[in-house]
Amino acid sequence: MNLLLVGPEEVSSSGEVLLHDERARHLLDVLGVHAGQYVRLGVLDGPKGRAEVLWTDDDTVRLRCELDPSPPERPRLDLVLAVPRPKVLKRLWAPLAAMGVGRIYLTNAKRVERFYFDSHAIRPEVFRPRLIEGLAQARDTRVPEVQVHKHLRMMIEQEVDAAHPDAKRIVADPVYRRSAIRVLSDLAPERRVLLAIGPEGGWDPLERDLLERYAFTGVGLGARTLRSDTAVIALVSIVHEALRAD
Amino acid sequence: MNLLLVGPEEVSSSGEVLLHDERARHLLDVLGVHAGQYVRLGVLDGPKGRAEVLWTDDDTVRLRCELDPSPPERPRLDLVLAVPRPKVLKRLWAPLAAMGVGRIYLTNAKRVERFYFDSHAIRPEVFRPRLIEGLAQARDTRVPEVQVHKHLRMMIEQEVDAAHPDAKRIVADPVYRRSAIRVLSDLAPERRVLLAIGPEGGWDPLERDLLERYAFTGVGLGARTLRSDTAVIALVSIVHEALRAD
Repeated sequence: MNLLLVGPEEVSSSGEVLLHDERARHLLDVLGVHAGQYVRLGVLDGPKGRAEVLWTDDDTVRLRCELDPSPPERPRLDLVLAVPRPKVLKRLWAPLAAMGVGRIYLTNAKRVERFYFDSHAIRPEVFRPRLIEGLAQARDTRVPEVQVHKHLRMMIEQEVDAAHPDAKRIVADPVYRRSAIRVLSDLAPERRVLLAIGPEGGWDPLERDLLERYAFTGVGLGARTLRSDTAVIALVSIVHEALRAD
Repeated sequence: MNLLLVGPEEVSSSGEVLLHDERARHLLDVLGVHAGQYVRLGVLDGPKGRAEVLWTDDDTVRLRCELDPSPPERPRLDLVLAVPRPKVLKRLWAPLAAMGVGRIYLTNAKRVERFYFDSHAIRPEVFRPRLIEGLAQARDTRVPEVQVHKHLRMMIEQEVDAAHPDAKRIVADPVYRRSAIRVLSDLAPERRVLLAIGPEGGWDPLERDLLERYAFTGVGLGARTLRSDTAVIALVSIVHEALRAD
């Protein structure tokens, strides 16, 4: 745990937090905190900073927050992701939040099995703790927004121009040859990126046509075919790296 | 299985292969091959191409190879990797081979626990099948060479100048700010890269001094701390992407 995350409703009007759950256990048993010590603390979807440990007993920790004036920036990347196999999706939630994604649209595609939408990997009670685990790892407070869309075309038609009018849009697929690094090389620093990643086996040609009509530029990872969880981590990290100034 | 991999000793002088193990099972039960059909085939550390299915029965497949004149190029990247936790290392073998690495030096570091060297994740009988699984996924035949070194300093002193005299050397650590993309942006297309990735928590300052004396340039992934398996996949994929011409 690189950052202790608490909900805004857990912070009292005087800026105090009383923990009595597995976070308290972790602070006491793993980190061995005691009164007077400071820990890094963040408020979910709010600011981060530090907190002084005011008081502990066997299973409770009381802290007082000292928070930055404003929350961290939202990651500059949003994701359209054809729903992966449930096992893969479960493994991806934490690294996606750790690498940093503003919004995730989970969508259908021709090569997505219908039953993936019934999997528990797609339920908030399963993915939210994993997202928070990834945020704690990366010291971020911004919980990725997750939307589930059973119709790719409707999602694209309703969301892309309305919610991402100025985003640079890129679609990853083995049929495309250009590297995301070249495609993003001269992007203005304020522009966001909307990245569409297809299912195992790639997007269907009609789906690529649809995305290209909505101004998505094709990018590929080169000649090697990666497993879909590796490919998602590779693509998201490459896009973030291409967006960095230093 | 995107590529059926066989050992050179399995190919007869007339170019035929007789399979009678789990590869035959996969060909018969999952792919449902029959005589006259072609499959993609590669010879470990040798050429790839295709093979005609000559004959099948309930649990045996006989094939005849038609191979390219020369083996695929070795990936341009070699890796110095502080031994990760056994669970993480086991998960990393297949994606490392799939993304493409020429040689992997597993080394000690101050923040590597000694018992990691006794783990079965570091034994050839455990990692070789996982490497081959990654190669089959990525359609490559070049098995990464793996060397285990219990002393980082000795490994660096003995191997780096001798085995990698012309390589561009980079070391990843949270203390460095520059992106690997910038550091590799004008690399000559024939130059190889030697990438050093530290343990969870990063390299020790003395280890960074050592690497810097051997002309390793520092790179970092930015402000977010990633779990070590995510960081390894991110770094390797970013370096490969930075080396691509298209």
